[in-house]
Amino acid sequence: MTSQQRYGAGIWHFATYVDRYATDGYGEPRTVIDAIDIAGKVDDLSVVDLNYPFFGGDFSTADVKTALDRNGLSVIGITPEMYTREFMKGAFTNPDPGVRRRAHELITEAAGVVREFGADYVKLWPGQDGWDYPFQVDHGALWKNSLDGVGQLASENPDLKFVIEYKPREPRVHMSFDSVSRTLLGIEKIGLPNVGILLDFGHALFGGESPADSAQLAIDYGRLFGMDVNDNFRSWDDDLVAGTVHPLELFEFFYTLRKNNWEGVWQLDQFPFREDSVQAANHAIDFLKAAGRGLDKLDFAAVQEAQDRHDSLTAIALAQKALFSSFGE
Amino acid sequence: MTSQQRYGAGIWHFATYVDRYATDGYGEPRTVIDAIDIAGKVDDLSVVDLNYPFFGGDFSTADVKTALDRNGLSVIGITPEMYTREFMKGAFTNPDPGVRRRAHELITEAAGVVREFGADYVKLWPGQDGWDYPFQVDHGALWKNSLDGVGQLASENPDLKFVIEYKPREPRVHMSFDSVSRTLLGIEKIGLPNVGILLDFGHALFGGESPADSAQLAIDYGRLFGMDVNDNFRSWDDDLVAGTVHPLELFEFFYTLRKNNWEGVWQLDQFPFREDSVQAANHAIDFLKAAGRGLDKLDFAAVQEAQDRHDSLTAIALAQKALFSSFGE
Amino acid sequence: MTSQQRYGAGIWHFATYVDRYATDGYGEPRTVIDAIDIAGKVDDLSVVDLNYPFFGGDFSTADVKTALDRNGLSVIGITPEMYTREFMKGAFTNPDPGVRRRAHELITEAAGVVREFGADYVKLWPGQDGWDYPFQVDHGALWKNSLDGVGQLASENPDLKFVIEYKPREPRVHMSFDSVSRTLLGIEKIGLPNVGILLDFGHALFGGESPADSAQLAIDYGRLFGMDVNDNFRSWDDDLVAGTVHPLELFEFFYTLRKNNWEGVWQLDQFPFREDSVQAANHAIDFLKAAGRGLDKLDFAAVQEAQDRHDSLTAIALAQKALFSSFGE
Amino acid sequence: MTSQQRYGAGIWHFATYVDRYATDGYGEPRTVIDAIDIAGKVDDLSVVDLNYPFFGGDFSTADVKTALDRNGLSVIGITPEMYTREFMKGAFTNPDPGVRRRAHELITEAAGVVREFGADYVKLWPGQDGWDYPFQVDHGALWKNSLDGVGQLASENPDLKFVIEYKPREPRVHMSFDSVSRTLLGIEKIGLPNVGILLDFGHALFGGESPADSAQLAIDYGRLFGMDVNDNFRSWDDDLVAGTVHPLELFEFFYTLRKNNWEGVWQLDQFPFREDSVQAANHAIDFLKAAGRGLDKLDFAAVQEAQDRHDSLTAIALAQKALFSSFGE
Repeated sequence: MTSQQRYGAGIWHFATYVDRYATDGYGEPRTVIDAIDIAGKVDDLSVVDLNYPFFGGDFSTADVKTALDRNGLSVIGITPEMYTREFMKGAFTNPDPGVRRRAHELITEAAGVVREFGADYVKLWPGQDGWDYPFQVDHGALWKNSLDGVGQLASENPDLKFVIEYKPREPRVHMSFDSVSRTLLGIEKIGLPNVGILLDFGHALFGGESPADSAQLAIDYGRLFGMDVNDNFRSWDDDLVAGTVHPLELFEFFYTLRKNNWEGVWQLDQFPFREDSVQAANHAIDFLKAAGRGLDKLDFAAVQEAQDRHDSLTAIALAQKALFSSFGE
Repeated sequence: MTSQQRYGAGIWHFATYVDRYATDGYGEPRTVIDAIDIAGKVDDLSVVDLNYPFFGGDFSTADVKTALDRNGLSVIGITPEMYTREFMKGAFTNPDPGVRRRAHELITEAAGVVREFGADYVKLWPGQDGWDYPFQVDHGALWKNSLDGVGQLASENPDLKFVIEYKPREPRVHMSFDSVSRTLLGIEKIGLPNVGILLDFGHALFGGESPADSAQLAIDYGRLFGMDVNDNFRSWDDDLVAGTVHPLELFEFFYTLRKNNWEGVWQLDQFPFREDSVQAANHAIDFLKAAGRGLDKLDFAAVQEAQDRHDSLTAIALAQKALFSSFGE
Repeated sequence: MTSQQRYGAGIWHFATYVDRYATDGYGEPRTVIDAIDIAGKVDDLSVVDLNYPFFGGDFSTADVKTALDRNGLSVIGITPEMYTREFMKGAFTNPDPGVRRRAHELITEAAGVVREFGADYVKLWPGQDGWDYPFQVDHGALWKNSLDGVGQLASENPDLKFVIEYKPREPRVHMSFDSVSRTLLGIEKIGLPNVGILLDFGHALFGGESPADSAQLAIDYGRLFGMDVNDNFRSWDDDLVAGTVHPLELFEFFYTLRKNNWEGVWQLDQFPFREDSVQAANHAIDFLKAAGRGLDKLDFAAVQEAQDRHDSLTAIALAQKALFSSFGE
Repeated sequence: MTSQQRYGAGIWHFATYVDRYATDGYGEPRTVIDAIDIAGKVDDLSVVDLNYPFFGGDFSTADVKTALDRNGLSVIGITPEMYTREFMKGAFTNPDPGVRRRAHELITEAAGVVREFGADYVKLWPGQDGWDYPFQVDHGALWKNSLDGVGQLASENPDLKFVIEYKPREPRVHMSFDSVSRTLLGIEKIGLPNVGILLDFGHALFGGESPADSAQLAIDYGRLFGMDVNDNFRSWDDDLVAGTVHPLELFEFFYTLRKNNWEGVWQLDQFPFREDSVQAANHAIDFLKAAGRGLDKLDFAAVQEAQDRHDSLTAIALAQKALFSSFGE
C-alpha cells in the first residue's frame, strides 16, 4: 500500500514569500511556471495544488498545463486567492455585498479551472474572514455569511467538491472557520454532500487539537476530503518541514488515516522562507515514507488493545519503535 | 431589566482548595455547610450550584436546605463529582465499563437531588474524560462513549435539563468536550432537547474562542442553558475574579446575551485560592452590575451599525465609553 | 505632569502593509512622506520613529525634515531596516561575515541620521536574528554574535544611545533578544552605558511577561531608554490599538513608569492593517490621556499599602476606579 | 561515556498526587519510604531528589537511609517544601516577615539534610513566589526579596550548592524566577559562586525557550548545576514521560550537554498521574539511553559545520538519523 502512496504539495511551497518586515521578499519573485519547474525537481511528487489566478504573470491554463506535463505533475486542487487586498475585510463575510459577489465570481472561475484540469476540488481558505477586535462584528451575521457563501457555491456546482481549510487565525486575529468542529458544524448546517474539510495537520496543532482526533472526527462525518502536513511550535502556523518537531503526533495522524482506509494524497503545506524548496520537500517526503514503512510494521491490533485500556505507555512504545526503526531504512 | 438581574456562584467559590504542591490546602478544609454560610455573606447572591456528593461531611439534603434557607439562597444546579479518584481515567469514557456504570449511577443520583431542590439542571463537567498522550486512545470510540453517556442520561430523565460545561483541558491534557463547537456537534448528534451548554467565559477564552461568538453560536442552536464568568490569562483556567483582566470581552459577552434576550442567572466560577471568598465575589458582582448599567446606556443601534461595517474602532469606542463610565456609579 | 506628556509613533503606523497572503498589500503603497503627512493629522502627536532607509522613494534627510516640519513633528529615533531580504538569515548573527559587515554599515549610517535629526537613539530590532528549527544553530555562537554586533556599534558611537527592542518571535520562529531578562543579561555583558531597552508593551505580553514587572526590572538596571504600546491577544504580536484588550495591565505599566519618575515619550507601535491610521492613533492616544488622568487621581500610597500586603483585590479596585472613571472625561 | 551515565528522579515521581478536582488523590497516599521502595524497582536508577520534610509520616534520616540503601539509591538533592499552605503567598517574598523567616529556617534545615546525605545541593523551587493579578505586587520589592532570600542562604552555607529551578507559572499565575535569563540575571546580582540553576527541560519548553539554548546560556555563565527532563505540550507543565512529544528537542538538549562536556546526572521530573510509576520511569530512561547511543554515533563535526551555515535541514537530518536509528537497539 505504501508503495502506491502519492505525494503532493501546494505550489506556493516553491514560491518565495514576503511578510510585513521583509517587504522585499525572501528571495527573487517567482512565477507559477518557475515554481512548477522547481517542484519538478522534487524526488517523488505527483500532484500540486495551484493558486488561482496564476501568480507572477499572465499565464493561460494551457501554459500551466505545459509546465506541469514537462514535470510529470498533475493538479489536485485549485485555491482561489480570496485573501488578497480586495478581500482584506473578508470574502464570504465582507461587509460590502459587492465584494462578496466578487469573491463568488472569483471562486466560480476557480471552479472552472478545476474542471479544466480534472482536479479533485476547489479549496477554500477564507483567511480574511473573521475579526480582530472585541465588538467588531455581529457574530451571528458573520457566521451566517460564511455558510451562505460556501453553500451557494456548492449548490451551484454540484459536480465539484469544495474543501474548507480551517485555521485558528492569521491573517485575521480570529478566523471564522477556526477549528475542525466549527467547520463540521457549518458543513452539517449547509447540508450538501460536496462540501468537506481539507485538514491541515499544523492548523490542528495550532488550534490545540490532537490532529489524529480531528482526522477521526472528520472521517466519522464523511467529510475528510483532503489533507496536508507540515510542522510548527503549536502557537503559530509556522509551516515548517513535516516531522521536524512533532514526529509522533504526525505518525498518529497517518495511523488514523490508514486505520480508516483513507486513501488520499499526502500533501505538503510548507513555507520554506529561508530553506531550499526542493530540499525541504524531499526532507518531508523522506519522513512521510518512513512513516509509511512504520505503519507497515506497526502492530495495529496491539495498539488497539492498548488503546482499549487507555494504556498510553504501551501504545506509544509500539508507535515509537515502529516509526523510529523505519527511519533511514 | 438590570435591577432584576440575579447573581449566582458555584459553591466551591467558598471552599478551600488543594493542588499538587500545596497538598495541605490553601486554608482549613470547609464543609458545604460552611461554604453556604460564607456565601450568605456576599452582598447580592441569589443562587448556588452545589457539588454532589456534598463535601466535607455526611450531610442530608435537608441539612443543606436549612443552611441555604438561613442564607436566602436557592439552588440553580447540581454538579456531580465525576472527576474524583474513581473517575481518574474518565467517567463517560472510562475504559472500565463498571466505572462508566458507576458514573451513570452517580449522575442519576444527582438528578434526583436536582428534583429535590427544584433546581434548573444537572451540570456535567467531565474533566477526566479525554487523553494525555499521543496514541493513548481510540478517538472515535472515546467520543462515542462521551455522547452515549450524556445521551443515556438525557433520555432517561426527560424532565430535567443536562448542561455540559466544556473546557480545553485540565485535569486531562485534552478534554473530550473541549470547545463550544465540539460540544454543539455532540449535542446535535445526541439529538435530545434537554441537553445544552453551560458556557464558562474563561473556558472560552482559554480555548482561543471569542466568548461573545461562542455565546451567539450556542444561542443560535438553542442550547445556551447556563453560563458563568471569571477571568484568566488565556493560557490556563485561572478562575480569577471576573473583570480584572478582560473587561471589554466580558462586556461583549453580556452584550451578546442581552441582544438575544437571554435572561438567565449571571454566575461566578472563581477559585480565590489566596483571596477572601466574600471579597472576591463582591468584587466580581460589582463589576457585573457596572456591566449591566453599561448595557443600559449603550447605544445598541449604533453598535450594530458599526458592526454592519466591521468598523472595529467605532464599535469599541462605544463599548469602552458605556462600560467604563458605568464603573463606580 | 500629564498635561506635558508627549506622544509619539513609529512612522510605519501610517504606512500600509503586506503579509504572506495579501501580497498586494493592505492598501496602496505609501512613501515615508505620505506617512508623515498622515501622521500630521493625528490630534496630539509630537514625535515619530523613522525607518531607515526612508521607504517608498529616494528621499533625502532634507526632504524628510521638510515634511516633518510642516506637520509639527520631530524625530525620536531611527530604526535601521536590518530585517529585509539581505538580512533574512540574520543581521548581527548572519552566518555570512559579509552580511554582518553590511548590517554594521547600515546601522552606522542610521547613527548618522540620528545625529542629523538630533534624535534620541538608534533603535535595533533584530527580527531576523534567531532560529527556526531544532539543531539549526550553535546557540553559544549565535548569542555571542548578537552581543558583539551591538557592542561594536555602541563603542564606536559613544555619543549616541542604542536601544534594543526585544520580542519573542516573528519573523524568526525564535528571536535571540527574546525577553526583557535576556536582553538585560546581554546588555550587562556588553557593559556599555549607551545600550538600553525599548520596551514594547505588546512584546512583553506576548512573551508571558507582566509588562509592569518588565518595566520595573529595566528601570532598576538603569536601562529603560524608551517604550511603546499597543495591544494583542498574548499569543502573537498583533499590534492592535492600545487599550482595547488589556486596559488594566496597560494602566499598571504606566503606573510603574510614573512611580519611578520615568519621563519619556509615550509611543505607539500599532499596525492598523484594516483600520484608518489616524483614527487608530487618536483612539489610542485618547486612551493614554485617560490613563494619565487616572494616574493623577490614583491614590499611590493606598496602592502601595495594598501591594505591601499582596492584597490583589484592594489594589485592583483602586486601579479600576481611577482608570475607568477617567475615561470619557 | 554513555555507559557510565547515571540516571535519577525526583522521589515524587513515585508518589501519588492530588489536584483541585481529584481531591481524594490519584491513588492511595504513599509515604516517602513506599516511594523509595517503588523507585528501587526501576531498571537503572542511581539517585533521587528528596522532598523535605519527608512525606507521609514521621521518618528520621536514618529510616530514609535504610530504605535507600536496600534499593541501591543515593541522594542527589533535597527539595524543601517551600510551597505548602504556610507559604501560599510566597516563601522568600511572603508579605509577612515571619513567614519569610520560617522559610529560611526550613531551607536551613534542608541544608543540614543535604550534609547528612552527602548530597549535591539544596534545590529551591519557589513555586508560590510571584503574583496572580495586575497591580497585586510591588515588582521591584518582590524581586529584591527573591534575591535576598536566596543570597542569605547561599552566604550562610558556603559549603553547599543551591540550585534554583525556574518555571513560568503554577501554582502562581506568574512565578518570580520565571525563565533561564531572569534566573541568571538574579544569580549574577547575588554574586555568589554556590548558586546555580537546575534546568528542567519541560519548564524551558513551557516558557517558550529552546531548551538547548537555555542549557548553553546557563553553561556559559558557569551556572548549570543540575537538570531534569520530562515532556509537555508547551502550554503547561504537564510533566509527561520524556521523549513522548518532543524527541528532537530533547536530543538537542543532550547534544548541548555533551558538546560542553557537562557530565551530571540525567534526572526525571515526571508526574505519572494515571500511569504506573515504574513503567513511566523505565520508558523515559529507555529513551534517554537511546539518546545517549544517538550521541555516540552523531557526527558532531558535521552538525557543527551545518550550524555554522545555519543550515537547518542538514543539521536536523543528521540528528534525526542518529537518534531514531538508536531507538530499539
